[in-house]
Amino acid sequence: MSTTPAESSVTELTTLVRAFADNRDWQQFHTARNLVLALVGETGELAAEFQWISDDNIVSALQDADKREAVGSELADVFIYLLRLADVTGINLAEELEKKIMINEERYPVDKARGSAAKYTKYE
Amino acid sequence: MSTTPAESSVTELTTLVRAFADNRDWQQFHTARNLVLALVGETGELAAEFQWISDDNIVSALQDADKREAVGSELADVFIYLLRLADVTGINLAEELEKKIMINEERYPVDKARGSAAKYTKYE
Amino acid sequence: MSTTPAESSVTELTTLVRAFADNRDWQQFHTARNLVLALVGETGELAAEFQWISDDNIVSALQDADKREAVGSELADVFIYLLRLADVTGINLAEELEKKIMINEERYPVDKARGSAAKYTKYE
Amino acid sequence: MSTTPAESSVTELTTLVRAFADNRDWQQFHTARNLVLALVGETGELAAEFQWISDDNIVSALQDADKREAVGSELADVFIYLLRLADVTGINLAEELEKKIMINEERYPVDKARGSAAKYTKYE
Repeated sequence: MSTTPAESSVTELTTLVRAFADNRDWQQFHTARNLVLALVGETGELAAEFQWISDDNIVSALQDADKREAVGSELADVFIYLLRLADVTGINLAEELEKKIMINEERYPVDKARGSAAKYTKYE
Repeated sequence: MSTTPAESSVTELTTLVRAFADNRDWQQFHTARNLVLALVGETGELAAEFQWISDDNIVSALQDADKREAVGSELADVFIYLLRLADVTGINLAEELEKKIMINEERYPVDKARGSAAKYTKYE
Repeated sequence: MSTTPAESSVTELTTLVRAFADNRDWQQFHTARNLVLALVGETGELAAEFQWISDDNIVSALQDADKREAVGSELADVFIYLLRLADVTGINLAEELEKKIMINEERYPVDKARGSAAKYTKYE
Repeated sequence: MSTTPAESSVTELTTLVRAFADNRDWQQFHTARNLVLALVGETGELAAEFQWISDDNIVSALQDADKREAVGSELADVFIYLLRLADVTGINLAEELEKKIMINEERYPVDKARGSAAKYTKYE
């Protein structure tokens, strides 16, 4: 792994997470549907960190060291299962992201999207 | 971005996703709570791809090209909002993942976890 | 079914939802894990209705007839799968709710909970 | 409340859940977006109960008394926030369910749905 974690590639992190499972003989539990449910569980825990804090208070709440650690920990759990799910289904997560961004570039051209932002403003 | 997408770093992908939002002036919609809800929405769409396919059929179902594309697209959407959420909250996602793996290495030592796998087998 | 829908009992609604599935021979798809994933998918669609509307704008947004219909439709979908899941697992949903409220009455005694509201206010 | 819990109406349960919140002065925390996030959190906990148990093992796993209690408890939590969310948004949950079933009756006519079950079998 790279010495600067932020520079870790998706491939490196996928390998790290896979090795963790392999070393414990846990591949048998890591079926696609099990991992989807685990991802959902972790997304739920992440959501719970935000559930009672209003929009007005969330920025300051996230400056609290304990809260940041809790949110960081849940983000990590979601990421772990996301990488693991992509890995066991043989899907290249980075490639899919780049493909999706290109699709979205066409769906939401800068000049139109900036002007109207219709995707977001319908009910605001 | 690197020419081999799989080698893209989390930092590069974060920058890519941020630029997409910035270019459209969409940062204003990307508050922490909005992004959590968007992440939940995409996780729900991902789950829906797996909802009516039994464990016995999922491996072969995922060999279908259309199904793979659909799942890949949903994985990308989840990843986009995960990166965006980490970005706006100022949390280093790769670093948090590596920290969490280290914590789990201690919580589930290889020799014990391999032997019992208690985390998984309680009801099996 | 009762003539005043709001007075429908959980039992009546469970029966209604079960009959819909039975009439189509869909029980075969309604395994516990499939229904959990379906419930997650619908919860995601519900969350998506709230994702780009800030706390400040949500009350007025919900006065829009189209928005109310969309939210009502998603709430119904979540409820349908919740009832169906309880039904196939043989769990009495109304009874469980009443049991849980009693547990919460003890966990959060009125005089203490009202005074401190610690459950909610930690980060606010 | 009725003496037979299963016969409780949605209205009665909504009132019960509302009273619990009112008695603790917790309405202030029960905004629509907070409740959506809380519902997501509880749905995640429910999903977690199913995450490591395969389709083949889930029926027998659910015969375990501890497991049933855990699942029942999570189903109750999801139901509580679903009722609360419908209540604060002024949406009649039973009515919406009955409306949705009628819509689905037209979308999936018994004779066609029974024959093809296309909704479910596409990838099976």
